[in-house]
Amino acid sequence: MSVSSNRTPVFASEETPGITRDAFPNARKIYVEGSSPGVQVPMREITQSPTKAARTGGVTEDVVNPPITVYDTSGPYTDPHAEIDVRKGLAPLRLEWIRQRADVEELPDVSSVYGRQRASDPSLHALRFRRLRCPLAAQDGARVTQMHYARRGEITPEMEFVAIRENMRREHVNEELRRQHPGKGWGAAIPETITPEFVRDEVACGRAIMPANINHPELEPMIIGRNFLTKINANIGNSAVTSSIEDEVEKMVWAIRWGADTVMDLSTGPNIHETREWIIRNSPAPIGTVPIYQALEKVGGTPEDLTWEIFRDTLIEQAEQGVDYFTIHAGVLLRYIPLTARRLTGVVSRGGSILAKWCLAHHAENFLYTNWDEICAIMAAYDVSFSIGDGLRPGSLADANDEAQFAELKTQGELTERAWEFDVQVMNEGPGHTPMQMIQENMTKQLDWCHEAPFYTLGPLTTDAAPAYDHITSAIGAAMIGWYGTAMLCYVTPKEHLGLPNKNDVREGVVAYKIAAHAADLAKGHPGAQIRDNAVSKARFEFRWEDQFNLSFDPERARSYHDETLPAEPAKLAHFCSMCGPKFCSMEITQQIRDYADRAGVDPESVQEQGLEEMARSFRESDGGIYQPDA
Amino acid sequence: MSVSSNRTPVFASEETPGITRDAFPNARKIYVEGSSPGVQVPMREITQSPTKAARTGGVTEDVVNPPITVYDTSGPYTDPHAEIDVRKGLAPLRLEWIRQRADVEELPDVSSVYGRQRASDPSLHALRFRRLRCPLAAQDGARVTQMHYARRGEITPEMEFVAIRENMRREHVNEELRRQHPGKGWGAAIPETITPEFVRDEVACGRAIMPANINHPELEPMIIGRNFLTKINANIGNSAVTSSIEDEVEKMVWAIRWGADTVMDLSTGPNIHETREWIIRNSPAPIGTVPIYQALEKVGGTPEDLTWEIFRDTLIEQAEQGVDYFTIHAGVLLRYIPLTARRLTGVVSRGGSILAKWCLAHHAENFLYTNWDEICAIMAAYDVSFSIGDGLRPGSLADANDEAQFAELKTQGELTERAWEFDVQVMNEGPGHTPMQMIQENMTKQLDWCHEAPFYTLGPLTTDAAPAYDHITSAIGAAMIGWYGTAMLCYVTPKEHLGLPNKNDVREGVVAYKIAAHAADLAKGHPGAQIRDNAVSKARFEFRWEDQFNLSFDPERARSYHDETLPAEPAKLAHFCSMCGPKFCSMEITQQIRDYADRAGVDPESVQEQGLEEMARSFRESDGGIYQPDA
Repeated sequence: MSVSSNRTPVFASEETPGITRDAFPNARKIYVEGSSPGVQVPMREITQSPTKAARTGGVTEDVVNPPITVYDTSGPYTDPHAEIDVRKGLAPLRLEWIRQRADVEELPDVSSVYGRQRASDPSLHALRFRRLRCPLAAQDGARVTQMHYARRGEITPEMEFVAIRENMRREHVNEELRRQHPGKGWGAAIPETITPEFVRDEVACGRAIMPANINHPELEPMIIGRNFLTKINANIGNSAVTSSIEDEVEKMVWAIRWGADTVMDLSTGPNIHETREWIIRNSPAPIGTVPIYQALEKVGGTPEDLTWEIFRDTLIEQAEQGVDYFTIHAGVLLRYIPLTARRLTGVVSRGGSILAKWCLAHHAENFLYTNWDEICAIMAAYDVSFSIGDGLRPGSLADANDEAQFAELKTQGELTERAWEFDVQVMNEGPGHTPMQMIQENMTKQLDWCHEAPFYTLGPLTTDAAPAYDHITSAIGAAMIGWYGTAMLCYVTPKEHLGLPNKNDVREGVVAYKIAAHAADLAKGHPGAQIRDNAVSKARFEFRWEDQFNLSFDPERARSYHDETLPAEPAKLAHFCSMCGPKFCSMEITQQIRDYADRAGVDPESVQEQGLEEMARSFRESDGGIYQPDA
Repeated sequence: MSVSSNRTPVFASEETPGITRDAFPNARKIYVEGSSPGVQVPMREITQSPTKAARTGGVTEDVVNPPITVYDTSGPYTDPHAEIDVRKGLAPLRLEWIRQRADVEELPDVSSVYGRQRASDPSLHALRFRRLRCPLAAQDGARVTQMHYARRGEITPEMEFVAIRENMRREHVNEELRRQHPGKGWGAAIPETITPEFVRDEVACGRAIMPANINHPELEPMIIGRNFLTKINANIGNSAVTSSIEDEVEKMVWAIRWGADTVMDLSTGPNIHETREWIIRNSPAPIGTVPIYQALEKVGGTPEDLTWEIFRDTLIEQAEQGVDYFTIHAGVLLRYIPLTARRLTGVVSRGGSILAKWCLAHHAENFLYTNWDEICAIMAAYDVSFSIGDGLRPGSLADANDEAQFAELKTQGELTERAWEFDVQVMNEGPGHTPMQMIQENMTKQLDWCHEAPFYTLGPLTTDAAPAYDHITSAIGAAMIGWYGTAMLCYVTPKEHLGLPNKNDVREGVVAYKIAAHAADLAKGHPGAQIRDNAVSKARFEFRWEDQFNLSFDPERARSYHDETLPAEPAKLAHFCSMCGPKFCSMEITQQIRDYADRAGVDPESVQEQGLEEMARSFRESDGGIYQPDA
C-alpha cells in the first residue's frame, strides 16, 4: 500500500458556485492505494505541531507529534487539487471494477416508463443533468450484489477499499499510543487490522452491507455493520414548501463535509427525478431514498391510488439512476395496523402511514409484502440494498416497544431472510422515540429476529419534551444504541418536529451524530477509535490550541468559540486559557508534578514507597513558580 | 393544600435593568400552600388549548386538555406579579422557620477577619450590597442542619416544601394519563406521592441532601437524591479576564430560568466577596462555591502559600454570606498525587491541582483532610452541605477510572462517614471524562464506597474529540449516569475547554442538561416524569402547535424554529407542518385510522379477529380524503 497526496484531476476547471470547497485546516487529503487497480482510498491527514521542549521537563528538544489520519466522508470537495464541476459530476471511480466483473450490460435507454417520459419532456431541459451515462443492469439472471460476490468467496475492489478505509492507517500511530498508555481502552472483539477477507466474510453472512449500486460508480465504497465504525446518515430533500436543485446538491456536499456516511434524499416536491440525478452524480456517499414517496407524487398524493405497477416502475427508475439503498415499508402488514389505534401518537412514519392507508382502503395485504420476491429480483439486478422500513415505529415515549412495533420487527426479520435468498444486502430500520431503559430491548430483539442484519435507527429520542433540541435528545439514545450494536444512526436535526432544516441545522445534526457514533465506537472498544481523542487531549494538555481545534470534529467552530473570549493570536500560543487566566492553571501544575517526578528520577508508580520528603525539598528549591513562559 | 396564584408583593417597585423578567408563554406561576406557615411552593402551570372536535372522529365537542404543572426553578423572576429589585434582594422566605427552631443566634458582626476588612473598606462602597442582615450562626454546640432535624425525627417546613415541590401536583393529571395509557412507563420503586416523611427519612440516612444555609433565607428549598427528580447545576463566575457583578447576577437569573436547580459561583477574579453577596441575596436556588479558589486569591495565587487559617476564615466568611454548599477537595491525599504522573492529562481539576501543588511543596498531608473535623463543625453551625470534590478526576478518556481516581473516591467515602457524625449533609463529586462502557462502574463504586450519599457528576463527557460540542458529548454521559443513580448533573457548556460561556452558552448548557436529567427520570420510572412528554406528544399529534411550544423546555426557541419555515400565524393552526406539506400528513392519516376504528365500533385490540373487509368498505364510503379542514 502506498500513499499519494493527490488524485489525477479528472475535470476541466469550471466554476461551481454555491458548493462548499474549503479544505480542513492543517489537513491534507491523502489517497491510500490498494492492490487492486484503481483502489485509492481517501483519508484526511491532520498535521500536528511539535510538543515544545520547555513543556516537558528534562527534554531539551521539541518532540514530534505524528499526523493523525481520520476517516473522511467529504469526498473530493475538500481536496484543493480536485477540479469539480457539478454539471459534469464526479469521476466514475468504480466503473472499471464493475465492467471487469463482466456480469452487467449497458442498456440503450432507461427501462422505466416514467424515466423515459421525463427524459423526453422538453420543458425539463433546463433542469436536467446533461452528461448521463447509459444505465447498467445485470445480465439476464445475474446477481451483481456485493453479497453475491462475497458468498462465492470473491474479494471485490470495493471490499479492499472498505478494509483500507476502516483501518485509517492506524498502524502508524497505534504502536506509539500503546507505548504511552499500555492497557488503556483497547478492544479485543474486533480484529485490530480489518482485512479484505474479514470484510468479505461479514458481507457474505449478512452482518454488514456495502450499499453500492452499479449505476453509482462515483461512489467511494463504505460499509455498514456493527463490527465496523458506526456510521451516520443525514436526510436532505425538498418538499412542497421550499428548496431547489442547487440547494439539494449543496446540502449533500455540506452533510458529507461534517461527517455523514450516507445521505437520504427524501424529496417530496416537484422535479424529484431531476434533483436526484444531480445529487447522485455528485455524491461520493451512498444515496438512499424512500421510493414510495415518489410513487405517491405520481398518483397525485392519494395513497389509495398507488399500484404495484407504479411502484415497480419507480424502483427501476431510481435503481437505474444509481440509488444505493431503498427504504421499503414491507413490514406494515394489514393485521398490524389496528394495533396502533390506541397509541398516543398513532403512525408517525410517513411511509408507514401511506401503506396503512392503502391497506385499509383496499382491505388487502401491503403490496410491498406480497411482491417482495419481485422487488428482491430488481434489487439484485442493480445491487440496491434494502433498508427495510419501520413504518410502525413509535412517535412518542408512550408508544415505545409496543405490540405494533415489535410485530413489524418480526416481519422485518422474515423479509430479511427472503432477501438474502436473492443475495440482496439488507439492513433494518428501527426507532424512533424510546426512553433509555427500553433501548437495549430493541437491539436484542433485532439481532435475534433479524438474524444479525445491520440495524439502522432514527435516534432514538429519549424524551419528547424538548423540540428545538432533538439533535440532543436523540444523540443520547443514538450513542447508547450504537454501543449496543446499531450499525448506522440516522441523524435528527434541531428542527425535527418543527420545520425543515437549514444548512446550520444539518451541521448541528451531523456533528451531534458524529459524536454519538464515535462515542459508540469508543464504548465498543473499536480498535483505533481512541487515537483521535488521545491526540485532542494531549494537544489540550500541552496548550497546542491549533492542534486541538484542527483535530476536532468541527475545527471552525472550536476556533471561533475560543476566539470569542481571547481573540488575539498570541493567546493561541499561551500556556493558559480564559477559564483560569494567566496566574493559575491546573494543566500547568500537572506538568510541574510530572517534571518533578521526572527530575527525581523515580517511577511514579513506586514513588509512594520512596518517601516524598526529599522530592518536596527539590521541588521548593527548583522554580516552583506557576507561570514559566518559554525561553 | 390550596393554591394561590400570586404571593404578596414584598418589595416596592423599582427598576431592575438587565435582569430577565419575562414570564413563560401561556404559563402562570402558582404557589401551592403547605400545612406549615409560610410554605408556598412555586410551580409553573402551563395552560393547554382544547382538542378540537373535528380532530377526533365521532366527538362533537371540544375536549379540554388539563393544564400541566411543571417543576419551576426560575424563582419570582418569571412571576409578573412579583416586584423585584436586585439592590434589595429577594424576600427571606425561610427566616421565620429558621428563627422558630430557636437554635441560632444573630451575630453582631461577621466572624471572618477578611469579611470585616471588606466591610470596612470605603473603596468598595459602590460595589457593596447595601441591605445586609446580621449573620446567623448555631447557638453554642448546636447543629442546625436539615440532617440533624431529620435524624431526630423532625419534619421541617423545608422538608414539607420539598415534598410538595417534587410532587408537581401530578395527582391532578395522573389519573387521566393512567386511564389513557394503562401500564405505560410507570415506575414502582419510588413512592408515587412523595411525602414529607419520605423526604425526612432520605435526608436522615444521608441518601439525599437539602442544601439550605441558615444565612440564605431567600432560598426556595430543593432536594438532591437519587429517589427524587434528577437535578442539574450551572456554573457561573467571573475570572481574571472578563465579567462584572451585574453580569453575574443576571447569569444566575438566566441559568435558573432555563432550569438550573443549583448555581455554583466559581468566580476567581476581583471582588469575589461582593459578587457573591449580590448573587446569594438574589438567588432562590442554592448557591455552591469552591472556597479554595477564593483562598488562593487571598494569597496572591500561589498555592504553596495557602494556610489552614486563611482557608478556615474563608469558609466562615462564605458560610455567613449564605453559601449552601462547598466543594472541598479533601480526598486529594499526598500519596495519590504521584499516581497521576503518567496520565495523559494529569490533574485537570483546578481545586485538585491547587491541593496537589500544596501537598508536594510542603510534603505534608492535604490540610483539608487533616482539618476535616473542624471543617465539619463549621458546616454544622450554618448548615452548609459538603460537595466533596474529585480533584483527581480524569481529564480525558485515556485516564478514566484509573487508580488515582478511585483511590480518591474511597477517601471521599471515608470523609462522608466522618461528616455524617457531625450531622453534616454530604454529596460526592464525580467525573469528568468517561467512555460509555466505563460509566456504570463509577456509580456502582460510589454507591458502595460512599454509602449511598448523593453523587454529583460533571457530565461525564463520552468523547474528547468534539470541543465546541461538549454540552452534547457530556449530555450523553450525564443522561446515562443519571439513569444509573446520579442525583445531580453539573452542566457543561459548548465553550468547555475553549473559553468562558456567554449567555447563550449558559442556555445551551442548561437545556442540554435539563434534557439529560429528564431522560434519566424517565428511565428510572420516576412517577409523573412522563406527564410532560405525553402532553407534548399529544399536542404534537393534534397539531396544537402553540401547546407543543409552550410545554417544551424552551418555548421561545421551539416557536422561532417553527416560524423560520412557516412564519404565518395561520400555519400554527394548520393540520400539517412543513415536513410533508398540505397534501399529505402522516399524523392526519393516523387520526383517520383511529376514527375508522371508532366508527366501526370495535375494540382495536381485537380488530384482527373481526375481519377487515367490512371496515375497509365503510372506510372507502366515508370520506377517505386526506385533508379535512375544520368546518
